[in-house]
Amino acid sequence: MDPSWQPAQPGDRLAAIDTPALLVDLDAFDANLAALMQAVAAAAAPGQSIRVRPHAKSHKCVAIARQQLALGASGICVQKAAEAEVFIRAGIPDVLITNEVVAPRKLARLAAVAAEHPQARIGLCVDALGGVGALATACTAHRARIDVYVELDVGQDRCGVRTDAQVLALAQAVCRQAGLAFMGLHAYHGAAQHLRTLEERAAAIAQAAERARAARAALLAAGLPCPIVTGAGTGTFMLELSSGVYDEIQPGSYPLMDADYARNAAAADAPRFAQSLFVLAEVISVRDDGGRATLDAGLKSLATDSGPPLADLAGWQVRSLSDEHTVLDRVAGAHALQVGDRVRLIPGHCDPTVNLHDWIVACRGDHVAEVWPVNARGAVF
Amino acid sequence: MDPSWQPAQPGDRLAAIDTPALLVDLDAFDANLAALMQAVAAAAAPGQSIRVRPHAKSHKCVAIARQQLALGASGICVQKAAEAEVFIRAGIPDVLITNEVVAPRKLARLAAVAAEHPQARIGLCVDALGGVGALATACTAHRARIDVYVELDVGQDRCGVRTDAQVLALAQAVCRQAGLAFMGLHAYHGAAQHLRTLEERAAAIAQAAERARAARAALLAAGLPCPIVTGAGTGTFMLELSSGVYDEIQPGSYPLMDADYARNAAAADAPRFAQSLFVLAEVISVRDDGGRATLDAGLKSLATDSGPPLADLAGWQVRSLSDEHTVLDRVAGAHALQVGDRVRLIPGHCDPTVNLHDWIVACRGDHVAEVWPVNARGAVF
Repeated sequence: MDPSWQPAQPGDRLAAIDTPALLVDLDAFDANLAALMQAVAAAAAPGQSIRVRPHAKSHKCVAIARQQLALGASGICVQKAAEAEVFIRAGIPDVLITNEVVAPRKLARLAAVAAEHPQARIGLCVDALGGVGALATACTAHRARIDVYVELDVGQDRCGVRTDAQVLALAQAVCRQAGLAFMGLHAYHGAAQHLRTLEERAAAIAQAAERARAARAALLAAGLPCPIVTGAGTGTFMLELSSGVYDEIQPGSYPLMDADYARNAAAADAPRFAQSLFVLAEVISVRDDGGRATLDAGLKSLATDSGPPLADLAGWQVRSLSDEHTVLDRVAGAHALQVGDRVRLIPGHCDPTVNLHDWIVACRGDHVAEVWPVNARGAVF
Repeated sequence: MDPSWQPAQPGDRLAAIDTPALLVDLDAFDANLAALMQAVAAAAAPGQSIRVRPHAKSHKCVAIARQQLALGASGICVQKAAEAEVFIRAGIPDVLITNEVVAPRKLARLAAVAAEHPQARIGLCVDALGGVGALATACTAHRARIDVYVELDVGQDRCGVRTDAQVLALAQAVCRQAGLAFMGLHAYHGAAQHLRTLEERAAAIAQAAERARAARAALLAAGLPCPIVTGAGTGTFMLELSSGVYDEIQPGSYPLMDADYARNAAAADAPRFAQSLFVLAEVISVRDDGGRATLDAGLKSLATDSGPPLADLAGWQVRSLSDEHTVLDRVAGAHALQVGDRVRLIPGHCDPTVNLHDWIVACRGDHVAEVWPVNARGAVF
């Protein structure tokens, strides 16, 4: 698309933003960033230091990553090699790919990026011996060094190994390779993030932490190191913090949040992150005396894999979505909507929604403060 | 994202395509393009000429639009002003926005594009008098001329007017404006496209055609013109063709197709469009002796609003999707999958899936023939 179609400029009033646009409410966003770091500091035992490595697959935005680092994050996570490349080339100094990358073409490109940025750390997960060999080959060819974590399946049921014997075999293979630095275990329980009750999440993370504890013990008993156990997301990180097993947490959604996270029952001791992410849409058609309104944002502006968006407008609810439309119904005695009115929608799932947009319009009060490119939008490779 | 991360180059073998990549199988694609035009020609009554104006919101690709025009399409449809701008600037000579555009900022930009391209036709729908006035103001300011269609709600229940009186009032308002050319009625029944049985679709389109016929009669009775009744999609166009009411059809999905369209029972006289669109993904992790495989394409490469993708691989089915993963289970006596194997996925819904990708890799047999930019990817404005 024509890059000139940027929805706003810094200094614009909200009414001047072109729609549909991805908005971040900076007051809520700033509070979320601070609340996470405060919660981690408060939860740490005396002398304990837990690293925060926020997941950037949610925002894909260098400007947000820089703010997370400025507040004390030790690095970021990403999910794809192409995302890692975007952030490394933008100067983010420590990027962990919390995923397997196996294609020789991708590994060669990643090793080349690592070699070009010797001051940066790049990490990657492995769950099979073939992956270790392919990565080592790429690192040798490019004289690169990459941190390697063994992915332990602690309940996600997707990638990762499930036995201590597999962990040991992989760690030993990594330690034999000169270009690879074995860093420990990636033990993320993604499926636990959206369990609705605290009890369910606590049970899931207790089991995950026990699996990670046992795997680390097996490594140490075999004379191998295990410097880091990393994992945890926005829905469970307080549980990983208190487990005594995790050295690093990876929450991703907390700066932005979404309708699905809002359906989780919150723990009393966990910060209540505010919704800062919205899709701003405009009414393009009304009927029934303003009791039905059609907005100019649909499936191409809002991901619906975790349910439809919610209208951030009392007395209105989402009736249906199509490619470029969301239809709203008035359900209570709310004011009628008119053509040209603006409505903020709360995305069902922040990560794939952000990935639909090229720009994040960061607003403070009634004005646009900054417009951030979604640098890793489409970086699925 | 780094534009150098293009998944393939013309001449590459399929095995060299980076994943996940959006593929078009050119043999199926070419056959689909031809079959549509043949079906329209065969269905026309003697002396009747029905125009084909394919909807480009499905593919967002100038290279595909050019092929549609070369085969006899009279123009294309789009859904957003930003899409229209992309195609007009690329030289597509006739673009109808099958939607309301009401924001003065957008209308001014559209009128400016129209004024810069006086040899091109740009059309737009209206369903309220305010929209007519705003469009006329923009056209006057930019000395532009835009075709205007009144959108008639024939069952979609989203935008459009529902009474003949509203149609007449809008048509009269359009005809009073010097910069606007009243072209007739937009009467698209989107909700009918995915009704599963032919009987349901036939009943829906019979009702839609009757509504359009009555509205046109009301216009003619009032001394107003109604040159064009336009509408129809891939699921129903044979019905609109035989209705005797529609002058133009707007099928969008037929070149590509998707899993949801494949669930429609086909009419005996309708062409059977083949699946030409796939997301090529790679196995990055296996377990259970190769009976479970995790692919490197997820919600950021495949839209799931119309259901999950299907594996184009006998004996395998999709178990779950997450942001960057699809997990497959082996359900029959199929061969095991190994890390590095390639699997083609059939998207649930083609339109929002294409919008996730920057490139379409057009393949012929075992080779990449062309790599087309998805020019209007993200053009939601």
